[in-house]
Amino acid sequence: MDIQNITVAGGGVLGSQIALQSAYKGFAVTLWLRSEGSIERTRPKLERLRGIYRQSLAALKTDPKAWCRGLTDSADVPAEKIDELIARVDAAFEGIVLTTDAAEAFGDTDLVIEAIAEVMDEKDAFYTSIKDVLPERTILCTNSSTLLPSAMMDFTGRPEKFLALHFANNIWQNNTAEVMGTAKTGEESYRAVVDFARAIGMIPLELKKEQPGYLLNSMLVPFLNSAEALLANGVADVETIDAAWTLGTGAPLGPFRILDIVGLTTAYNIVAASPAAQDPDSVAARIAALLKQRIDEGKTGINAGEGFYSYR
Amino acid sequence: MDIQNITVAGGGVLGSQIALQSAYKGFAVTLWLRSEGSIERTRPKLERLRGIYRQSLAALKTDPKAWCRGLTDSADVPAEKIDELIARVDAAFEGIVLTTDAAEAFGDTDLVIEAIAEVMDEKDAFYTSIKDVLPERTILCTNSSTLLPSAMMDFTGRPEKFLALHFANNIWQNNTAEVMGTAKTGEESYRAVVDFARAIGMIPLELKKEQPGYLLNSMLVPFLNSAEALLANGVADVETIDAAWTLGTGAPLGPFRILDIVGLTTAYNIVAASPAAQDPDSVAARIAALLKQRIDEGKTGINAGEGFYSYR
Repeated sequence: MDIQNITVAGGGVLGSQIALQSAYKGFAVTLWLRSEGSIERTRPKLERLRGIYRQSLAALKTDPKAWCRGLTDSADVPAEKIDELIARVDAAFEGIVLTTDAAEAFGDTDLVIEAIAEVMDEKDAFYTSIKDVLPERTILCTNSSTLLPSAMMDFTGRPEKFLALHFANNIWQNNTAEVMGTAKTGEESYRAVVDFARAIGMIPLELKKEQPGYLLNSMLVPFLNSAEALLANGVADVETIDAAWTLGTGAPLGPFRILDIVGLTTAYNIVAASPAAQDPDSVAARIAALLKQRIDEGKTGINAGEGFYSYR
Repeated sequence: MDIQNITVAGGGVLGSQIALQSAYKGFAVTLWLRSEGSIERTRPKLERLRGIYRQSLAALKTDPKAWCRGLTDSADVPAEKIDELIARVDAAFEGIVLTTDAAEAFGDTDLVIEAIAEVMDEKDAFYTSIKDVLPERTILCTNSSTLLPSAMMDFTGRPEKFLALHFANNIWQNNTAEVMGTAKTGEESYRAVVDFARAIGMIPLELKKEQPGYLLNSMLVPFLNSAEALLANGVADVETIDAAWTLGTGAPLGPFRILDIVGLTTAYNIVAASPAAQDPDSVAARIAALLKQRIDEGKTGINAGEGFYSYR
């Protein structure tokens, strides 16, 4: 299957990144948005990303450590080639079509990547609304982190051409793409999406079956939870627990540094939703309380300037 | 409390490392062994370690990456200083007293580090046997990985001077020492052991209360278990799961590389002992079966040349 025209639905944090990255790698990209207001909110995001792409590439001229895995195949790129790539960023930015028109966005697209809100009713409404506009050939991917594709596949009317393609934040740098089908996803569509992910500079991680949380979060959540439990139980302090992990495994970041990046609100939502947290004497409830206290003080993580550590 | 004379009980993998490391850092070290046969088995271990210490130091003259955190404070050491340190390794090796005589080993010691077999009856017999020989001032530490100090403290007759000091393997390199008291451990003894750990080149990790598995294993076990579950459930293959972790978190090793280092037999023993594994349909039972199959093929990890990966 030959993918050339792609449509990204939703201009949020990831939608805008997926759009620019795909355009940068040579695909014709349409970004479908729900309203004119949404278009106005998306433009500055794309402009900001263009600046990051340009700066990251320019920095690579003098500093191999500035290498972003999604932008070039290696850190070793001649200066003239970098200038070409910077021009390509500008062309990509200019070339993205932003539209609220469903016929324009979906009438001749090979691949749709849906990155709208994580609300089942909105997913339902979206897939139902585009069903009759889409060409028969079009493959549909959801970038959903928390909803399983099998729960959405019937909305699409084409479960054999529907799967999940899950990106990490800052995709020009953290270039993994978890590819996860349902029991009904066809092999051809799955392979086409793996190839597409590779073509836009991602490292595809192939899941053979559905797994809530995909691969990374399936490991990260129990790991972070065990660290949170050590803290909530008063076994050791934040710095000591992080040191045990970084010194013991050689990892660059301990669990509380990772939690500051993930954001304490996300961590709180995960633990507070667990059945165990309903018992106020449980470890889960103590973890939730500990996170809640920091969140109430505005210490929600690195983006707020403070979480478990201060970044001011 | 001034610690000068230390006694290590047991000449196994860690006992011999703790003895040489403490002697290298200037302490008077006696290594107590149960029998003449045990002395004969311990000498070659100490000789091998002497070779590793000498080689690691010599390599540092030309290669900063050869730095072992337990041997020098930094990678930047002048060549003459390194020659001095190599001479110190030899002096340390020569100076260790190996004895089966309890009076000689324990009659005038400031600190005992017990590193004998992980069998409660043997711990009981050991602590009971030295009780009447020890000076009143002596602090006792267990290096036990799997038994809690509170379960042993009554054998010692001095629970206020008894705690756990838990080393990682290859302590000249992996220089963390988890310090964990019981509810009865006195503050003075705890501080003295933290200071001692630092004095022998370790980074002390202070636990404020008892925790089975200490800090590192409390996080490592659920993390590795989640990765094993992904494999046992057929969600993805070994390489993909490892890539999800290393690319997603920047860690140098994925869970299956770590399992190869830990050893599949240890991982099997942990999961097979869990109550969940008794149900043959459980994920734990499937993980156990998967590990058992590899173990039966001789693929027990990096030391065997093959585990989840091949190292031949």
